[in-house]
Amino acid sequence: MSSLIFNMGNCCRSFWCQKKNPDVRISLPVVCFVWQIAMIILFGFFVRYNEESDAHWSEHKHKKNITSDIENDFYFRYPSFQDVHVMIFVGFGFLMTFLKRYSFGGVGFNFLIAAFGIQWALLMQGWFHALDPVDGTIKIGVENIINADFCVAGCLIAYGALLGKVSPVQLMVLTLFGVTLFAVEEYIILELLHVRDAGGSMVIHTFGGYYGLAISWILYRPNLNQSKLLSGSVYHSDVFAMIGTLFLWMFWPSFNSAIADHGDGQHRAAINTYLALAASVLTTFAISSLSAKKGKLDMVHIQNATLAGGVAMGTAAEFMITPYGSLIVGFCCSILSTFGYLVITPFMEKYMKIQDTCGIHNLHAMPGVLGGIIGAITAATASTGVYGHEGLVNTFDFEGDFAERSPSTQGGFQAAGLCVALTFGLVGGAIVGFILKLQIWGDPSDDNCFDDEVYWEVPEDEESPILQYNSHMIEKNPDRMSEFTVEQS
Amino acid sequence: MSSLIFNMGNCCRSFWCQKKNPDVRISLPVVCFVWQIAMIILFGFFVRYNEESDAHWSEHKHKKNITSDIENDFYFRYPSFQDVHVMIFVGFGFLMTFLKRYSFGGVGFNFLIAAFGIQWALLMQGWFHALDPVDGTIKIGVENIINADFCVAGCLIAYGALLGKVSPVQLMVLTLFGVTLFAVEEYIILELLHVRDAGGSMVIHTFGGYYGLAISWILYRPNLNQSKLLSGSVYHSDVFAMIGTLFLWMFWPSFNSAIADHGDGQHRAAINTYLALAASVLTTFAISSLSAKKGKLDMVHIQNATLAGGVAMGTAAEFMITPYGSLIVGFCCSILSTFGYLVITPFMEKYMKIQDTCGIHNLHAMPGVLGGIIGAITAATASTGVYGHEGLVNTFDFEGDFAERSPSTQGGFQAAGLCVALTFGLVGGAIVGFILKLQIWGDPSDDNCFDDEVYWEVPEDEESPILQYNSHMIEKNPDRMSEFTVEQS
Amino acid sequence: MSSLIFNMGNCCRSFWCQKKNPDVRISLPVVCFVWQIAMIILFGFFVRYNEESDAHWSEHKHKKNITSDIENDFYFRYPSFQDVHVMIFVGFGFLMTFLKRYSFGGVGFNFLIAAFGIQWALLMQGWFHALDPVDGTIKIGVENIINADFCVAGCLIAYGALLGKVSPVQLMVLTLFGVTLFAVEEYIILELLHVRDAGGSMVIHTFGGYYGLAISWILYRPNLNQSKLLSGSVYHSDVFAMIGTLFLWMFWPSFNSAIADHGDGQHRAAINTYLALAASVLTTFAISSLSAKKGKLDMVHIQNATLAGGVAMGTAAEFMITPYGSLIVGFCCSILSTFGYLVITPFMEKYMKIQDTCGIHNLHAMPGVLGGIIGAITAATASTGVYGHEGLVNTFDFEGDFAERSPSTQGGFQAAGLCVALTFGLVGGAIVGFILKLQIWGDPSDDNCFDDEVYWEVPEDEESPILQYNSHMIEKNPDRMSEFTVEQS
Repeated sequence: MSSLIFNMGNCCRSFWCQKKNPDVRISLPVVCFVWQIAMIILFGFFVRYNEESDAHWSEHKHKKNITSDIENDFYFRYPSFQDVHVMIFVGFGFLMTFLKRYSFGGVGFNFLIAAFGIQWALLMQGWFHALDPVDGTIKIGVENIINADFCVAGCLIAYGALLGKVSPVQLMVLTLFGVTLFAVEEYIILELLHVRDAGGSMVIHTFGGYYGLAISWILYRPNLNQSKLLSGSVYHSDVFAMIGTLFLWMFWPSFNSAIADHGDGQHRAAINTYLALAASVLTTFAISSLSAKKGKLDMVHIQNATLAGGVAMGTAAEFMITPYGSLIVGFCCSILSTFGYLVITPFMEKYMKIQDTCGIHNLHAMPGVLGGIIGAITAATASTGVYGHEGLVNTFDFEGDFAERSPSTQGGFQAAGLCVALTFGLVGGAIVGFILKLQIWGDPSDDNCFDDEVYWEVPEDEESPILQYNSHMIEKNPDRMSEFTVEQS
Repeated sequence: MSSLIFNMGNCCRSFWCQKKNPDVRISLPVVCFVWQIAMIILFGFFVRYNEESDAHWSEHKHKKNITSDIENDFYFRYPSFQDVHVMIFVGFGFLMTFLKRYSFGGVGFNFLIAAFGIQWALLMQGWFHALDPVDGTIKIGVENIINADFCVAGCLIAYGALLGKVSPVQLMVLTLFGVTLFAVEEYIILELLHVRDAGGSMVIHTFGGYYGLAISWILYRPNLNQSKLLSGSVYHSDVFAMIGTLFLWMFWPSFNSAIADHGDGQHRAAINTYLALAASVLTTFAISSLSAKKGKLDMVHIQNATLAGGVAMGTAAEFMITPYGSLIVGFCCSILSTFGYLVITPFMEKYMKIQDTCGIHNLHAMPGVLGGIIGAITAATASTGVYGHEGLVNTFDFEGDFAERSPSTQGGFQAAGLCVALTFGLVGGAIVGFILKLQIWGDPSDDNCFDDEVYWEVPEDEESPILQYNSHMIEKNPDRMSEFTVEQS
Repeated sequence: MSSLIFNMGNCCRSFWCQKKNPDVRISLPVVCFVWQIAMIILFGFFVRYNEESDAHWSEHKHKKNITSDIENDFYFRYPSFQDVHVMIFVGFGFLMTFLKRYSFGGVGFNFLIAAFGIQWALLMQGWFHALDPVDGTIKIGVENIINADFCVAGCLIAYGALLGKVSPVQLMVLTLFGVTLFAVEEYIILELLHVRDAGGSMVIHTFGGYYGLAISWILYRPNLNQSKLLSGSVYHSDVFAMIGTLFLWMFWPSFNSAIADHGDGQHRAAINTYLALAASVLTTFAISSLSAKKGKLDMVHIQNATLAGGVAMGTAAEFMITPYGSLIVGFCCSILSTFGYLVITPFMEKYMKIQDTCGIHNLHAMPGVLGGIIGAITAATASTGVYGHEGLVNTFDFEGDFAERSPSTQGGFQAAGLCVALTFGLVGGAIVGFILKLQIWGDPSDDNCFDDEVYWEVPEDEESPILQYNSHMIEKNPDRMSEFTVEQS
């Protein structure tokens, strides 16, 4: 009887499979090879070392009267770069291992698209920000590779909403367009509007969050509950995810300070972020406990909402927001984020048809918008009394064409920047969503979502761990055979 | 029959539960909220940026004739700060995931109390060490946040003794008092006695170790063996714990050098710690193998005693202890530590009624005391021949009121500092223990110890992984159904 | 019946055990103690702080007219050192946890031999490179401890080929000889031939790879398939291994730049390695998918071949290989490496009797040789046009006795260096292999390979997790007893 039902289920699946064919044996290698070769050719035409990473550095030193190698930007930024690098690959990667049977996909596809994205980002960001007018090439140094990592973060955030529901080929397409949109949006916000956003509340988190949500909205799967069995976590996968959470949490001060101004800018950005994150943790534990039967804590909240303070400090971290201001930001933002997990995500799935696997709306989109607003307010209220004249000019870069801009005007431009990020995320995401909806990218069927077996060779022995374990034990302890064989009889 | 016994057991538990109610739904959120809001208010009154993290830095540079931003203390200490940060959150956190069903609590509560502790520590340490006499505020920079991390380490060590036996509310109370005691003790030792303790053998490890042991002594649970089933590790939880061990081990040179003097002080502290830790590993493997049937190694020793060398170098790391001196310290200290796990911990549990889940007596308390003694001896034997005149003054800060102090006097004061740390740990711990004994903090009953289910939403599917796995497999492979269903018939 | 077969199997094993006795209770402690004490004595005679880590640094500063402590080499290299340290202990360690029942051995023995190796390396490399002619002592600083970590990497690579098939005592012997051979080989290549090899493509990877393969060839086990049940991975062990992969991948730019020249040398080495590694990832995913049924990705490839670009950039990273040159290196090298896993490793096992557990031939040996060749070509084609005169002299150290050497001559010497590394690896490995073949080192029998139970106390409860879990659950939920007991009846 039950066998009959299963066979019927199987038939149904066969029927669906006519539409969805998750075999990426041709498409994935082709995309990877073609794009990698394109990268090599474009790098050949466009990318060179900048004066601090070129062998002519010693001549450059003489010319600029630099007395010591320690003045090379490498020593100002490389430790922060490595922290950011860890956040991108281990932080985001392991945060996405929480699903019981999608850890390979979480950490593995994160690895793939980040490695592709940083190459494409070096080019796109280079064309917009670092093009040498003399010879038309992009000159790269340590700041460029940090920015490339930042750019990729936007796409990884978007992946969070789609985790388990898309193919690696779709992710590559998402990254290609995501990096492109990011570079344009970043150019408008940072260069044209002259907005400050060192940790990317707007440029990275708001854009990345809404980009992913818009795609997820277009790719809505009404029958996703067929995969419900696999859409949760198990004990060990939650511990793996904590590795991701902690590395993100610990290194977020480096993220927000990595490309801030030398000296006090980096110093202040790190301290502000440190404080906001600390406040986030207490608030998250409080709300999580308050909302549950018997006050039991929920790992989903602890893994995510504790990070909201870092997102919300992205813009204001380098400003004189004051230490208690940072605590307030972390405090408020985590309430919002935990509340999002409890109320908004279920609401969005049910009524707005947006399926958000990792809850990026709560961790990136909303805190990013909040961070943009906080940044605008903090900028608008800046004064020479608090910053000193020189400090104000340095912090907001009121130089050149922008020498005459006042803090309150800057506040207005910051708000405009937030709108640009939102627009690019939502419109860009919707367009890319329609592209990804085409039936050529090898995405999994509804009942194969959240399952590594679709795209990975999962170790065979796992298929029946119990039987195999028993037979292994019997082999080792023949005298205790009865203890193990009992279950098989 | 067996069902009857279980029901009786259940009744017994119900009876005990009248006394112990581990529901923290009200108490945990209240404590978190009230304390976080108190932090915000106190930070509002007291905490400001120091001259290196304030926007006035560029003016400060002119005034002090500083030529380059690289002279900002941020660039001397931030890489070490991040290493220390990793030790606090990933190192301590994952080291405490070794229990088979308390990984959430190990890494999660560590996260909670560290995030609270660093805020409270910035205030407490600030009032004692960094109060600006002009405006009565605390000026913070990178050194303060390193010190806050250090301060929290003391409380995390204490948590190690209590792992699995206390509620998160108790841990918050433990941290509140722990940080307070720490700041006072640190003030007496470092400021009044003018003792050197860069890596905190005395201030952090001795204090934290005995603080935790005294609390554990007061909270003695005679019937803890009811939880024996859960008080061990499983294969994967031991591998998780190795993540903690290794990050502690690798970054300990940064811990001991983070707040040492610029230049040779930091350089030497890192090298000495590196060497002591290397020696610790070999000794631990040797003793662990020697003590077991067939020479089999014990993961408990490898996870803990390998770190003893770092603890014992906490005071002497910045002194001219010589490279071979460092090796000797690591060598001796790991013998003591492994011996502690083999003999002293069981003895303490049986005869002294001190239950020490992680064995902090072996990893922190004893090596900390040893480190204090080593530091006193090394200081007492210092000479201008070895250090140079300027080096001696720099290393021991023989300036101002202490310009006339001789190395041998310094040795005496170092020993006095150790006694202060011991006293604060033992007396403070006993008092805090009595506070935590009150029946209002929601601690678990004896047979609920070491179990995440008390305070965490543990993934549901884990409750019967086998049945669920089988049904999942049947769904996927209806033809192989008999293979999986056999166990359920 | 089946019981009979098992008992017969047991008898057979007893017979074999006469030959192989994996009890290391005497040998391991003796080796650890004797060697550690020897280290202490030798350090006592030979090792001192160098002028940058000695308390006389402040006097040295005055003498050399150094204005700031930030000029201490510590601040140039310590952040990179910590990254390298993480690669050695967490990177290599966790990469070797992929086997289902050898995670303790993978990460634990890696820990043991690395901790021993760095001490012996400080001595051996010191005698060859850093001996003070005045007083005959070795003066150590941060560069020496980076080099010690590098030296140990060679032995850890060799361990990769032998993973699961050797005893800890054999590994200690392997490390003793490995470090010795390494120091001699490095002296010939770097000092006598004056070859540049900042990231060690030749010195570390070629040597270490062929050293391990030669040993594995001598220790060939024809009946290793008896352990086949344990020679694969399980789901969670593959996720653990990804921790190793990612930390190696992320920190490889620090590995290749750690001892490069200050300033542009370190800067360029980091960027080149970053790019080569990014290209490696895409290529690996492409080939892995292309080679499998239904395009499913293989974790073995993702865990290993993605790193090949870092190995291959070891020599050329500090040269002006150009950004697109780096991409090409990563691209080609990962094709070779993935192809190695698919074809060469099975071929070598079947026809050449070389068993290579981790596939070090594909990840280290071949890419190392390729890296040496790439380095030779890049050096030979260097010109003052590309480097500038001063840059060329700095990059290739054309000073002192080598002031007259031309780039093309340098290319020839680079190639000669590669041959030296190959020879030392193959010949040295064969000799050490014969030493390790002696029946005194406690190696496991063929059917005990890849099993932690031989050398570790494995948590007892794991032996029958199902039965125990059920009884635990019954205790907790007596009312649901029938659900759990059904399997035992």
